[in-house]
Amino acid sequence: MAPSNSMPETMTAIRWHPPSFDIRVESVPVPKIEHPDDAIVKVTLAALCGSDLHVYRGHGGVDKVHTSGHEFIGEVVELGASYGSHSPKGRPELYATLKVGDKVVSPFTVNCGECSVCRMGYTCRCPSGSLFGSVALEGGQAQYVRVPKAGGTLFNLSDPKSWHSTLSPDMKEKALSGIADSSLLMLADILPTGVFAAVQALNHPKVLPALSGRPWPTSFFSGDVSATVLPEDRLLTFAIIGLGPVGLCASVSLLDMLSTQQLPFQIVAIDPVESRREKAMAVYKKIDQAGKGSGKFEALSIDDAKNIVATWTGGVGCTAVLEVVGNPSAISLAYDLVRPFGAIVSVGVHGEPQMPFTGRQLYNKNVSFDFGRCPARAMFPMAFDLLVKRQDVFGEVGGLHSLVDRIVAPKEAPEIYEAFDQSKIGKAIFDMWK
Amino acid sequence: MAPSNSMPETMTAIRWHPPSFDIRVESVPVPKIEHPDDAIVKVTLAALCGSDLHVYRGHGGVDKVHTSGHEFIGEVVELGASYGSHSPKGRPELYATLKVGDKVVSPFTVNCGECSVCRMGYTCRCPSGSLFGSVALEGGQAQYVRVPKAGGTLFNLSDPKSWHSTLSPDMKEKALSGIADSSLLMLADILPTGVFAAVQALNHPKVLPALSGRPWPTSFFSGDVSATVLPEDRLLTFAIIGLGPVGLCASVSLLDMLSTQQLPFQIVAIDPVESRREKAMAVYKKIDQAGKGSGKFEALSIDDAKNIVATWTGGVGCTAVLEVVGNPSAISLAYDLVRPFGAIVSVGVHGEPQMPFTGRQLYNKNVSFDFGRCPARAMFPMAFDLLVKRQDVFGEVGGLHSLVDRIVAPKEAPEIYEAFDQSKIGKAIFDMWK
Repeated sequence: MAPSNSMPETMTAIRWHPPSFDIRVESVPVPKIEHPDDAIVKVTLAALCGSDLHVYRGHGGVDKVHTSGHEFIGEVVELGASYGSHSPKGRPELYATLKVGDKVVSPFTVNCGECSVCRMGYTCRCPSGSLFGSVALEGGQAQYVRVPKAGGTLFNLSDPKSWHSTLSPDMKEKALSGIADSSLLMLADILPTGVFAAVQALNHPKVLPALSGRPWPTSFFSGDVSATVLPEDRLLTFAIIGLGPVGLCASVSLLDMLSTQQLPFQIVAIDPVESRREKAMAVYKKIDQAGKGSGKFEALSIDDAKNIVATWTGGVGCTAVLEVVGNPSAISLAYDLVRPFGAIVSVGVHGEPQMPFTGRQLYNKNVSFDFGRCPARAMFPMAFDLLVKRQDVFGEVGGLHSLVDRIVAPKEAPEIYEAFDQSKIGKAIFDMWK
Repeated sequence: MAPSNSMPETMTAIRWHPPSFDIRVESVPVPKIEHPDDAIVKVTLAALCGSDLHVYRGHGGVDKVHTSGHEFIGEVVELGASYGSHSPKGRPELYATLKVGDKVVSPFTVNCGECSVCRMGYTCRCPSGSLFGSVALEGGQAQYVRVPKAGGTLFNLSDPKSWHSTLSPDMKEKALSGIADSSLLMLADILPTGVFAAVQALNHPKVLPALSGRPWPTSFFSGDVSATVLPEDRLLTFAIIGLGPVGLCASVSLLDMLSTQQLPFQIVAIDPVESRREKAMAVYKKIDQAGKGSGKFEALSIDDAKNIVATWTGGVGCTAVLEVVGNPSAISLAYDLVRPFGAIVSVGVHGEPQMPFTGRQLYNKNVSFDFGRCPARAMFPMAFDLLVKRQDVFGEVGGLHSLVDRIVAPKEAPEIYEAFDQSKIGKAIFDMWK
């Protein structure tokens, strides 16, 4: 398809320079279609994410100048030759349906959508995948971005048929027109990652006896039950470690699942930073009763959290812990808080330190772990439905309970990166045309 | 209840002496009821287990002489005051039904059966529990053993109503009379531990997309499916690391579950010791077609296993790995073999070394782990049914395909421990009255 007439030759991009702490706003060539499966997206908003700080700080072992950013939303302005009604059956549906002018959000990694890994829903590990804003692929903090394998990667916000949503027709209508781009941008990473953490915690086999009321292993065995699980055994206790944007999304998602399934629960959300705890409590208070159920939710410091878990559970520990930080002290805290036969879900981006556990510690507590990156594209339908349902907390910018702190111009990027790195501001979004 | 008239004052016991490698056959006092919930069991057979070697070698930090052994089968000869028809409703059923003369097998740990941990089926982590053959509790390699909390702990082989079995009436009749004690003794540890490994591997949420044919996370989401899982995506690839008795039990259990559920699979069973691989293949060949399904099963060395997994999966890796050894090299091999978004189930008894993984390795492969001790008492119904079904492999002693190598007299214990420690013999059982 022909490029839009208005395509310029150069554009503004926020670029990282080695070795560290060097962000520059530069004019660079507008990307072009390089492969028939490519799309060029005109970026309206692009966000700064906590995981951008790994490269910013020079921890990534990266030595090549590149455009930053893996969270962006925008409009399709050019499509490769693979797109259109001639797209063969069996390819991802967007090859046949995506059009210039469609509003799209991208997950933070490319995925082809048609290999075995993608078909299974493990999209973040697609062998053809790359992370936006890395040496392998220019990022989305730019006025235009090239999206490889866009028919497998993008989510078409303009086409409700492609959403695979469980929303009612009314809610879909609302989603089509009434949601701010700054809210939809959460789909790129933080919201699906939060949902991923909550889904894994609530669906772990070791949590199943509490959910089903059938003792281990009768969840997997047709025999009758010798022990009787009592109502008090089924009270679910969760800890969420790290109350940055992903931790808040995990909190809202977990509360939504627990209230929808009418499960009894108590949640402690943990962060050493007081302002983050205050935000978590403000988010919780803003959620309507149907979205937060009737359990307990507390945002506490590490020591206070240890105490309350001990009190709540008689010293036994949490049914599951969601670890959203990605460092040895966070995963150690998760171990301390989890019960024997509990589950630790870690969606934090871990680095080079060795896991701080002996084999004996893990054996002696019958601990389970789920590590790893969110398959964001596969999580989009769940995350999208939650985003639309929970506009009370996901819909605003700059309020005490809002996940997004501010929307700024690209020229402010060097100062914004620095302030974000020093925890002086919360999540910031770049309006790439401001 | 009154003790049996035939109770002697002293008995033969196999005892461990500090600091290491010192096993003595001694005459010690016969244990007495110390608490109303106790039972005294006259031991017919007691087995030597690989995990006994930790203490034998002096690795357990133990400095107190004690009777060894946590695998035993026998007959109830004395019961505390808690037993009988006066036992209050709500206590574990054996307090009301267990009688002197009943044939029983014990799991390797005591569990009360009536706390929250036990009610949930996490019986090996009962706060009132102890491991037999440890400093905390005299072991079962003796002519008599005291079983604390016996109403929660023991499995009454004489009372089919208490089995919670799914076997047909015919099979139950067979189970009541036609199974050798040397076979039933596998219930104490090795068979439930093998079943525990297989259950966890096959029921992990990350394995669910292959089982259900619905991509992640639609197993947990009511929305419709965007990607179509193809039949070839659903081929399950498993590795089993360690072909001692537990690894063989895990193999047989996994094969049984896969064939019962008619799932397509390929399994590689791994051990550096050739005689163990030969036994694994002999066990596999002995299983009837209904019990081994129509998948592939190979027993290979470490290098050959790596090659075949690469060939079988096009370099992707195993859906799940069962690690039945419990040391850093075994868990590292599991990591190398597992696919991204795969599950590692570790039932091996790990020691003090730190986990040999960086956080980045675990994040980058989206690995899940299930660690820990088998809740043997909770696994008994599943393990018992498998034991009865699979008498073709669990029913014999001393054959190429049999899990039990020999039955010996207690006086041979020092030599047997030494030979077992040096991998010169396979699993040995002591006939305590020989």
